[in-house]
Amino acid sequence: MSKHENISMSVIRRLPRYYRFLSDCIDKNITKISSKELAERMGLTASQIRQDLNCFGGFGQQGYGYSVEYLKNEIGSILGLQNNFKAILIGAGNLGNAVASQLSFNKLGFDLIGIFDSSEQLIGKKINNIDIFHIDSLELFCKTNKPVMAILCVPKSSAKSITDKLYSIGIRSFWNFSHYDINLNYNEVTVENVHMSDSLMTLCYKINKNLNI
Amino acid sequence: MSKHENISMSVIRRLPRYYRFLSDCIDKNITKISSKELAERMGLTASQIRQDLNCFGGFGQQGYGYSVEYLKNEIGSILGLQNNFKAILIGAGNLGNAVASQLSFNKLGFDLIGIFDSSEQLIGKKINNIDIFHIDSLELFCKTNKPVMAILCVPKSSAKSITDKLYSIGIRSFWNFSHYDINLNYNEVTVENVHMSDSLMTLCYKINKNLNI
Repeated sequence: MSKHENISMSVIRRLPRYYRFLSDCIDKNITKISSKELAERMGLTASQIRQDLNCFGGFGQQGYGYSVEYLKNEIGSILGLQNNFKAILIGAGNLGNAVASQLSFNKLGFDLIGIFDSSEQLIGKKINNIDIFHIDSLELFCKTNKPVMAILCVPKSSAKSITDKLYSIGIRSFWNFSHYDINLNYNEVTVENVHMSDSLMTLCYKINKNLNI
Repeated sequence: MSKHENISMSVIRRLPRYYRFLSDCIDKNITKISSKELAERMGLTASQIRQDLNCFGGFGQQGYGYSVEYLKNEIGSILGLQNNFKAILIGAGNLGNAVASQLSFNKLGFDLIGIFDSSEQLIGKKINNIDIFHIDSLELFCKTNKPVMAILCVPKSSAKSITDKLYSIGIRSFWNFSHYDINLNYNEVTVENVHMSDSLMTLCYKINKNLNI
């Protein structure tokens, strides 16, 4: 697997998209696909695809195409989706609810094991069959269940204090939906941000410049 | 403004973050900031900041620093935030609710003027003081109010049909939360995707490789 080291994040960020398209192919009973066909489906060039996949050692045979299932499984394995990392979600508002109910965590590398909120009326309820606990029970829950990742669906005003708490408990990985830049304040944390407002401003720029991308 | 043409999207994607940090500075009554101080706050290097801002003509004076408000306003203007592009949102479930209620659209370049859903019990209600209309009234609403952008908070299963409809009505810009690649099927559309599952898989990769980024 040493070949997988030092791959640029821009290549890595394309892998989930390959994974999604290959999953679609499987749903459509497509078993073999050429880089040309895959490129057409994905709006990329065949040479871009070959170049990306060559970072990981290839997977295809010249003139023969890729085995869809094999390629999907290999990409899943590179992404580490087999890990089922234990995760918790903080903030059971609309956003937390959407995240907990709409994503298939166990197909995406994680096992969502608990949801936390401070609102008394949510405690004891479930989202997608996962219990909502009171935020006060966070520390005990983490000591017992040892989650490695926390999903932050809290407002900016409480993001710092909850991150301090999670960090002190030992959480070092965050999927961050709050408007708070976690990695500026902590060492040795792994963070993936979903900054919706940044995305919306980028769209504004594209529309303003009439960019068809 | 011709200096702003041909700026790479990777620079553009950093602008919303500058904009957020400068807004924070204003909230903290900071009126002047050097590229070094801004770099420390943002976890970037001073030379990266100077290089980014030089793409747009500078804004700073050597040894004097940037005027926070001037710089924020200039970046806002480059992003086109003054446009208040009319937008509609499709799908008033948890995600649509979160998007409509948590973002300050009019500070981010848009004016959210209507929300659409097919669920009878939502019709007539409001989110964040914006009316929820029945999806059947979409065409008439668009003819009358002429929105330029649509936010898709619908499941993948209905994303294609609703996008077909919106495209036929004349919408050419999309903020897309659905697992559907709009720009593969339409010409001359402007799309910004928020693919949550891709983000989650990327986080899985980072944790698996123990990357502290």
